[in-house]
Amino acid sequence: MIYATIYYNGKQEICSVDPEGNRVFLLSEFLDSEKNMNEFIEEYNDEWTDQIAFFFGTRPNLSIPLDEVKLLAPIPNPKRNLICVGKNFVAHADELDSKIFSDNVPKHPIYFTKPDHTIIATGEDILLHENITKEVDYEVELAVVIGKNGSDIPAEKAEEYIFGYTIANDISARDLQNRHEQWYKGKSLKTHCPMGPWIIHKSMLPLPLSLELKCYVNNELRQHANTKDMVFDIPALISDLSRGFELKAGDILLTGTPAGVGMGFDPPRYLKSGDEVICQIEKIGVLSNKVK
Amino acid sequence: MIYATIYYNGKQEICSVDPEGNRVFLLSEFLDSEKNMNEFIEEYNDEWTDQIAFFFGTRPNLSIPLDEVKLLAPIPNPKRNLICVGKNFVAHADELDSKIFSDNVPKHPIYFTKPDHTIIATGEDILLHENITKEVDYEVELAVVIGKNGSDIPAEKAEEYIFGYTIANDISARDLQNRHEQWYKGKSLKTHCPMGPWIIHKSMLPLPLSLELKCYVNNELRQHANTKDMVFDIPALISDLSRGFELKAGDILLTGTPAGVGMGFDPPRYLKSGDEVICQIEKIGVLSNKVK
Repeated sequence: MIYATIYYNGKQEICSVDPEGNRVFLLSEFLDSEKNMNEFIEEYNDEWTDQIAFFFGTRPNLSIPLDEVKLLAPIPNPKRNLICVGKNFVAHADELDSKIFSDNVPKHPIYFTKPDHTIIATGEDILLHENITKEVDYEVELAVVIGKNGSDIPAEKAEEYIFGYTIANDISARDLQNRHEQWYKGKSLKTHCPMGPWIIHKSMLPLPLSLELKCYVNNELRQHANTKDMVFDIPALISDLSRGFELKAGDILLTGTPAGVGMGFDPPRYLKSGDEVICQIEKIGVLSNKVK
Repeated sequence: MIYATIYYNGKQEICSVDPEGNRVFLLSEFLDSEKNMNEFIEEYNDEWTDQIAFFFGTRPNLSIPLDEVKLLAPIPNPKRNLICVGKNFVAHADELDSKIFSDNVPKHPIYFTKPDHTIIATGEDILLHENITKEVDYEVELAVVIGKNGSDIPAEKAEEYIFGYTIANDISARDLQNRHEQWYKGKSLKTHCPMGPWIIHKSMLPLPLSLELKCYVNNELRQHANTKDMVFDIPALISDLSRGFELKAGDILLTGTPAGVGMGFDPPRYLKSGDEVICQIEKIGVLSNKVK
């Protein structure tokens, strides 16, 4: 199943998307009530997966063409900050080493966060904030949406705590990331987390994942790797992060970016006004944003 | 005015506390509806300050003795992560320098976050999490509660965006803080942010603040400084942080800790089971927690 948040008929709705990604069904028809994506995830019952497929499969007249709705970020208002992982692909850790980091591939995951005001949808504009940064960079990442509250989760049970997957672009102001020592401020400018286009439920993508990630800037392929090449895989991240720490349904975990970011070039190739950044993950979709 | 969140008669309530801090009044009596502290702050109107004082001043029969209620953290469920500032007192930056930091007093504020599950109230237990950390440390901090949404806030207007002040103990697992490079994980274990006992409305503490901060462990004074000795004062922090960044009503900004943390001693003096940690800020109150 594919789930999305959309703007339709003057309001925000959640919907199921057909497997071809060209028609949507309002989940309020199935749920018999209006919920946002946070509530839907919190209340989700594994039996719904098949029930929703059947419900809309037998009611094709309820479908709405995707091009008649506006896709919003799948979770436009998460209840807590996005949790991000740094240096989680070997080649990316190497390229950044000489620039900002003090050592190479991490022995333990590096976690930091981004606030909700960074989130924008596919098709929306990334702002450069030229008065405060000159070094705005892109980072394609697989984002894991947590489905269930839990602490001290063993790696072998991690999949139970996952709701699904989406794509994020962890836009980073490198000069601020460096200047403020901890990365929070440099990762937190408004519009600096494009996310979407939707959530692929975990039933469609069983672990372990082996998905090609790509990022294009103006049709030039800049980043290209496979999710199986993460330093810490998804079960390892969920297990490590959740030690003494409560993961909550609706949390979003960005799992790190591969080599090829603008900062890794010599000279660096940061984003500029008019650029188009396309993040693409196999079996998930395409997240496309222009730089304003 | 002093505002608190309490547990009373089987449910969570918000209340006004009398200036002596020994009687409370349920704000539902004044508001004629039940709100939580987030909603109260979002809807707060500066005229309420005097109106609430008058309303309860003329209705002493509505008061409840403080010892008949349980104080909760003033904002038990913030909508976003707590925002923290590191190395914001010169003497503390010096003491930590040789241990974990790469340079001394910062030229720009260092920001990081803590998630909501760290928050506990005065009187509740701090957990040691001995299976994952051996270095649990205390940090008394003045916490600023934001009262109004805003970006790009000039320092001279910062006070308009403040709702009030409380006390936080930014408990830190130093080994995790170090091991994971970015501080998020080491700052984010469950129960690692005692906060309270209540919020002092800004009308009682006009800027600039000059308040003594103290932290005692088992009645031994470990930290003692004045809020006027911050490297970046409150207006500077609000102004810097809000550039390209949306501060929101209900956000909580921890403004940094002075010298005297356990890590600063040789050998270090980390918290151990049975310790009592008392954080005290002049004109705000006392936040007291035992280590379990």
